[in-house]
Amino acid sequence: MKFLKTISVDEFKIILDSIPRLKVEEEIVSIGESFNRILSRDIESKIDVPHFRKSRMDGYAVLAEDTFGAEEDNLIELEIIEAIQAGDIPQKRLKKGQCSYVATGAAVPGNADGVVMVEFSERQENKVSISKAITPGTYVIEIGHDVKKGSTILKKDTLIDLATMGIFASCGIKGVWVYTQPTVSLMSTGNELVSQEVKNLEIGKIYDVNSVVLRKAIENTGVLVKFLGVIKDNYDELKNGIEKALENSDIVILSGGTSKGEGDLGPKVLEGYNDIEILIHGVKIKPGKPIIFAKVKKKIIFILPGYPTSALSCFYVFIDNFLRKMSGYPLRDKFSKEFEIGERIYSTVGRHEFKAVKIKEEKGIKKIFPIKTGSEAISTMFYADGYIEIEELESIIDKGDKRKVYFF
Amino acid sequence: MKFLKTISVDEFKIILDSIPRLKVEEEIVSIGESFNRILSRDIESKIDVPHFRKSRMDGYAVLAEDTFGAEEDNLIELEIIEAIQAGDIPQKRLKKGQCSYVATGAAVPGNADGVVMVEFSERQENKVSISKAITPGTYVIEIGHDVKKGSTILKKDTLIDLATMGIFASCGIKGVWVYTQPTVSLMSTGNELVSQEVKNLEIGKIYDVNSVVLRKAIENTGVLVKFLGVIKDNYDELKNGIEKALENSDIVILSGGTSKGEGDLGPKVLEGYNDIEILIHGVKIKPGKPIIFAKVKKKIIFILPGYPTSALSCFYVFIDNFLRKMSGYPLRDKFSKEFEIGERIYSTVGRHEFKAVKIKEEKGIKKIFPIKTGSEAISTMFYADGYIEIEELESIIDKGDKRKVYFF
Repeated sequence: MKFLKTISVDEFKIILDSIPRLKVEEEIVSIGESFNRILSRDIESKIDVPHFRKSRMDGYAVLAEDTFGAEEDNLIELEIIEAIQAGDIPQKRLKKGQCSYVATGAAVPGNADGVVMVEFSERQENKVSISKAITPGTYVIEIGHDVKKGSTILKKDTLIDLATMGIFASCGIKGVWVYTQPTVSLMSTGNELVSQEVKNLEIGKIYDVNSVVLRKAIENTGVLVKFLGVIKDNYDELKNGIEKALENSDIVILSGGTSKGEGDLGPKVLEGYNDIEILIHGVKIKPGKPIIFAKVKKKIIFILPGYPTSALSCFYVFIDNFLRKMSGYPLRDKFSKEFEIGERIYSTVGRHEFKAVKIKEEKGIKKIFPIKTGSEAISTMFYADGYIEIEELESIIDKGDKRKVYFF
Repeated sequence: MKFLKTISVDEFKIILDSIPRLKVEEEIVSIGESFNRILSRDIESKIDVPHFRKSRMDGYAVLAEDTFGAEEDNLIELEIIEAIQAGDIPQKRLKKGQCSYVATGAAVPGNADGVVMVEFSERQENKVSISKAITPGTYVIEIGHDVKKGSTILKKDTLIDLATMGIFASCGIKGVWVYTQPTVSLMSTGNELVSQEVKNLEIGKIYDVNSVVLRKAIENTGVLVKFLGVIKDNYDELKNGIEKALENSDIVILSGGTSKGEGDLGPKVLEGYNDIEILIHGVKIKPGKPIIFAKVKKKIIFILPGYPTSALSCFYVFIDNFLRKMSGYPLRDKFSKEFEIGERIYSTVGRHEFKAVKIKEEKGIKKIFPIKTGSEAISTMFYADGYIEIEELESIIDKGDKRKVYFF
């Protein structure tokens, strides 16, 4: 067991990256609901798109040969035998010297082999004069031009985006097989926590924030979240909660109860499992050193610090993209930009720190300022624009230095 | 009326920007549901956060004076009268020479004025030796340190993000007043369009894509979407559809029926309204020149081209951020990067073109290549990574030129 071994941020990331995607089930969803889900099977088109020859332009469907020689000073007259709008079924075949009006997207008559744009024509009742010769194939979209019947249009494991949905829709596909979303059970632990349903707070109690904020942050990664409530600092209660969570979900996330203080039961409960593999306990970061990452009964469990600001920072730095990988969601790009430090920033040597910072303008130049409140204050999260990384051996970052800010 | 007057992209953007946010209603939502909604009222905290004095560290709550003079070689012994865990109500006040154990986050006894970190203490049963002097206030978080009772914590018109939700949660706020989401009615028009419910496509018919793709794109802007179905190219049907949509929604979006071809009824129906103000008909862009933007009965109506690829390009270029402004959602940053052109690209003079392009590597360098299919093909959207803008007077962009690609 790697209990209480503190590792570096990079070591943690390497361990997380080594976890393969969960073996998940599949289910059918309607295409309207399929956005951001992952295909679990290859998709084949049962039709050609288009499945009929159609015109790319408003104009006249012709036998191309009939137009040969047509020029502005050598008009060729054709008889109009039909007008075909988009959606119409052509009723007539062309004979030599005949044509049919076709709207953009309309089917062309079976034996037409080209379309003369309306711009190169002049109509008089049921006749039209053509002023331009065309070659066979001009402005006719052939059957299967866009998608061929029987072809694999999308491969298994593809993320479904708007364009993918467009392909399904145009092939007439109503529903697709996708992987089920991993389920994450979330619990908050701590005797001091109470729900927002409670009106009058006793001394010593605080409202639970993680059930709201962490929950939403987890939901945003494309997994299904079950919130199992606030668990008291009681061995049996926590053991029961974790037991239930492991049974009913793929991943378990707890907040609170990770450090070595008297009231911290998370590690104690985990130690009670025979088949537990504690992969990480503690990362050299501030805020949020006491993070636990373990595997029990083939499920994954994270225990995050209790302070909401620490819990959320840890979540963003480590777990956000891990869950996105599990659900197949697009990973979050960390958007970052370099600025000058506007005020000296202190850090603890020996801890890789993610320091919450604010960007303020000073004489028209955007600079980095530290947030004065710590991870105990929810307002730290509120006022911060992002964070800077401070290396383990740095204790001071001086005014005028340059740093990359990672935006939330 | 500005019928059929084609304007430039920039003119269109200026007109759209001049439209104020819709006068919308307000409603109460639970904080769990409030993510990405906009506050319609200022929010005041009814409590102090914290509402009791608490310890920032695991340690001993003391009368600071009792520690004066304590050093590693001058230990001061105090009597431990209580152990206070997070969530506990302190039962005892300190007398001179006494202290209470406090966990991080626990309430400190009423008259304690500082906390000595556990690192500077050594316990023997009910006694503890202190090796460091502290000043009053050390490691005690005062009442209201984070949020003050009665203070305005958030202003009306604030977008609710995770940190905002955290503030609500820690103040015990269960629900908040937010603006209702604007409703958008969406219709597809065209005799050729059929729903994916139809199994065997007749000649001339195609599956409707916009009801799936455009719908989802609109939903992603934070508005509520009602899809009113596929409308045939029939004046009365379209008139009825628009009528209903104007009654039941704030914004109406139609696709199809915008150009001057025979089957295009959108403009005709709009002309029938007395109080119509057609602000735009036609923008000098390709694909998607025939876009209409009008105000009728104080509602906003857009008519987009019917081809899904054109409809979606138009949507992204003009309407996406317009709807986000209306719903209060964060605007979409257009992510762009410059690359070299890998193959000559042609464009039509007189049209500002948004040309779908693909990024491919050639000898290790990422270059821009045109997509060969046009806006009639759904696969254009599928294979494109983004688009480049081509000015009205450009007809050729040569291999080796550099262009900015805007990614989808």
